Amino acid sequence: MSYGKKKMHLNLFLRNTGHHEASWRHPGSDPNGVTDIDYYIKLAKIAEAGKLDSLFLADSYGLPPTMQFLVQQALEPFTLLSALAIATSRIGLIGTASTTYYEPFHVARKFNSLDHISRGRAGFNIVTSTGNATAFNFGAAPLPEHTDRYERAGEFMEVAKGLWDSWEEDAIVADKEQGLYVDPEKLHEINHVGRHFHVKGPLNLPRSPQGHPVLVQAGASDTGREFASRMAEAVFTAQNTLEDGRSFYADVKGRMAKYGRSPAQIKILPGFCPVIGDTSAEAKEKERELNELTQPEYGVYRLSNLLKMDLRGYPLDGPLPFAELAENHEINSQKARHQLYLELAQRENLTIRQLILRTATSRGHYSMSGTPIEIADEMERWIVQGAADGFNLMPPYFPSGLEEFVDKVIPELQNRGLFRTDYEGTTLREHYGLERPERSSSRQSVISAQ
Amino acid sequence: MSYGKKKMHLNLFLRNTGHHEASWRHPGSDPNGVTDIDYYIKLAKIAEAGKLDSLFLADSYGLPPTMQFLVQQALEPFTLLSALAIATSRIGLIGTASTTYYEPFHVARKFNSLDHISRGRAGFNIVTSTGNATAFNFGAAPLPEHTDRYERAGEFMEVAKGLWDSWEEDAIVADKEQGLYVDPEKLHEINHVGRHFHVKGPLNLPRSPQGHPVLVQAGASDTGREFASRMAEAVFTAQNTLEDGRSFYADVKGRMAKYGRSPAQIKILPGFCPVIGDTSAEAKEKERELNELTQPEYGVYRLSNLLKMDLRGYPLDGPLPFAELAENHEINSQKARHQLYLELAQRENLTIRQLILRTATSRGHYSMSGTPIEIADEMERWIVQGAADGFNLMPPYFPSGLEEFVDKVIPELQNRGLFRTDYEGTTLREHYGLERPERSSSRQSVISAQ
Ligand SMILES: Cc1cc2nc3c(=O)[nH]c(=O)nc-3n(C[C@H](O)[C@H](O)[C@H](O)COP(=O)(O)O)c2cc1C
Ligand SMILES: Cc1cc2nc3c(=O)[nH]c(=O)nc-3n(C[C@H](O)[C@H](O)[C@H](O)COP(=O)(O)O)c2cc1C
Repeated sequence: MSYGKKKMHLNLFLRNTGHHEASWRHPGSDPNGVTDIDYYIKLAKIAEAGKLDSLFLADSYGLPPTMQFLVQQALEPFTLLSALAIATSRIGLIGTASTTYYEPFHVARKFNSLDHISRGRAGFNIVTSTGNATAFNFGAAPLPEHTDRYERAGEFMEVAKGLWDSWEEDAIVADKEQGLYVDPEKLHEINHVGRHFHVKGPLNLPRSPQGHPVLVQAGASDTGREFASRMAEAVFTAQNTLEDGRSFYADVKGRMAKYGRSPAQIKILPGFCPVIGDTSAEAKEKERELNELTQPEYGVYRLSNLLKMDLRGYPLDGPLPFAELAENHEINSQKARHQLYLELAQRENLTIRQLILRTATSRGHYSMSGTPIEIADEMERWIVQGAADGFNLMPPYFPSGLEEFVDKVIPELQNRGLFRTDYEGTTLREHYGLERPERSSSRQSVISAQ
Repeated sequence: MSYGKKKMHLNLFLRNTGHHEASWRHPGSDPNGVTDIDYYIKLAKIAEAGKLDSLFLADSYGLPPTMQFLVQQALEPFTLLSALAIATSRIGLIGTASTTYYEPFHVARKFNSLDHISRGRAGFNIVTSTGNATAFNFGAAPLPEHTDRYERAGEFMEVAKGLWDSWEEDAIVADKEQGLYVDPEKLHEINHVGRHFHVKGPLNLPRSPQGHPVLVQAGASDTGREFASRMAEAVFTAQNTLEDGRSFYADVKGRMAKYGRSPAQIKILPGFCPVIGDTSAEAKEKERELNELTQPEYGVYRLSNLLKMDLRGYPLDGPLPFAELAENHEINSQKARHQLYLELAQRENLTIRQLILRTATSRGHYSMSGTPIEIADEMERWIVQGAADGFNLMPPYFPSGLEEFVDKVIPELQNRGLFRTDYEGTTLREHYGLERPERSSSRQSVISAQ
């Protein structure tokens, strides 16, 4: 055992039957469980038994036209996380909401409410949405441009923070004798007037246990990284290699100083998808079996969609049409993921089929097969070499991919002094070593520029 | 004991420290409990032990400027009800959402998700909002006119129902062998194009256990009653007297035939606020003690706000200025409640102070003090005389006002054969004797008029 090492943070990325696109066909998976609350309670309890910092639900508000190939429906994050708050007691609960398709009052209130209900375990993954399957459920207009989405996101967060700070900590007096419930001097309107929002405030809930939810973001573009370094407290990211991870880590942390923030105020969590075997050969075999369950028709769709180019005419066992792809200027969203795929294909000289299989496990996130020792080695490398503060754990299939990690990899990480052996705090902020934000009073009655 | 009687339905209207405006000052109340999940779990479990059909959370998205006088903040319904779904197993969970300040996709999805999570216990109280405290948190415009709100509500519900029906019951095949997850023929876009909404669909969740949540409404105006008789399955209402209750009951049920619905398809639940004592004198004394805790300054504010006229200049112990009030044409929302107050003051010849006290217990809902026998007698009268199918129970203070009802009144109702002695079903629909709606396929791909 070794002490004094930097401990890593672990977030469980919960996702229906797992992160491998064929996970629902895995013999151990329960594709009917994905709308069953007991299924999620079971997974959350396994993660909590493993002392993970948090669990996380991604979200969108539409369905892609590929439902025949895999599970893509999902219980709604606020409802599911509130239910899980009662079934668990320590693990953090991170939900996704889109600043493009929500009103800030609703989102600020729901996260505040979840933070009260969970006694300080709420986290907010701030997204701006990606794609028209969501857009066309909220009007006739397609997804707004990337810059517009981030601009709205900035104003959205200004409003949300204002609302979270609209009650002073000691606003509730509750003096039964005098009949004074709230000190009216300690309740503040925000009077926000901006390009996207007019919001008067105050919020109809007092400040929550964590002050506000932990702010999580996954911006990959330049604008996205800037947004993250200005306000995120944790960052999810997809990285192909440890090298790429290091440069992303340095880049985001390097941007923080100009906002008066220190690098420790953001935890960087690259996606990590482990296929675990008792021997390396067994792990490889498991991966092969999973890949055999993938459906090329879906793979081609997924790749075409991401690369914004119809690849159906190209031979599966030939290379990507790099020249045509380079001429493609339509990429409005997911530009960074797009580049990540192209780089991967070029670096490893992959055919279309091989690229599909390479990304089937975790859609471009780092994925590896190996023994618990090999996996712990790799995780340690990322931490020690400055590519990560922890990981966004993406088990290829549930529940066994998670169970194996908790049973075999976590003890190995604990033995190395790389992971907690028990929770030390009760809030999500405490798990991540993040400070509870002071209430900002400067925001009161400030009228933003029109 | 008598069998064969029509059984009543009971819904618990959960509301911070209770329905009496001074409830938070009651010696037994816990004004700090109102953001504490354990407080609500305790109340929900008491209600479930009493075999109540459901519990209900009202909601708005703003705070009135009277926080110094009483508790008015509230945990958010979707998060709180989802948490309560885990802490209970049978009781129905009715939440409020405004069709004026929400997008139908979000609301349809959340209720569907809550219905999955609670295994068929979700109910949706459809409201159009009342007042600018909410409006100014969603833009610069004041609350839209009454007719516009109901028009949007109609279109909103058309979209929501379309989304709830966008998956056929057997759409999920989950054939691991063939690799077919969903039968794409059984998933339907709704392609709604209307004045307020463009929504493509389908929903990103399969049809829920109840088909869709039980639809609840509390329309009091002519438009509101029409809306309720067209689509509600339960109606909340505030009635001063049994006589008024009978005429409301007959009116709403009478409107249903033209929509091809039978009277049994709506359960009418007037508000009922009992102050319970072991003797009539004790009950009266409890009521007097509560009223003594009210604050006239707040009472005048509340009355002025409802009657849309500043009453601060008028002597508390004099009559209402009926002539001036009659000239008041500004009433955009809560018109029916306004009339109810005026009628009450006129019929009972009340001073301003007396009207304030008469409505302090339950804001115009029927309220009485008495022994458990007297209370059961009155409830029986309402049922037998065709004024109610059950009640919206509004305990004046929590938890004891609820405990007394469950311990003393429920057994009396059970002895008379007026209330169930155990749950017979597991879903909210089963508790209320409402049918599970068939999926309507006529709604597919229908383009509404622009
Ligand atoms: C782990 C992870 C989870 C994400 N979850 C969501 C999500 O739930 N909903 C969503 O719309 N986008 C999600 N995204 C996309 C990001 O929010 C972001 O849009 C994307 O990484 C591209 O970055 P950019 O917006 O700065 O170009 C996720 C990204 C990552 C890496
Ligand atoms: C028991 C009860 C509960 C109600 N709950 C809400 C609520 O939570 N939010 C809201 O905006 N309105 C609520 N209302 C107001 C009604 O939705 C409705 O607007 C009001 O009764 C006036 O009727 P009208 O809209 O047809 O004029 C409630 C009314 C009653 C009687």
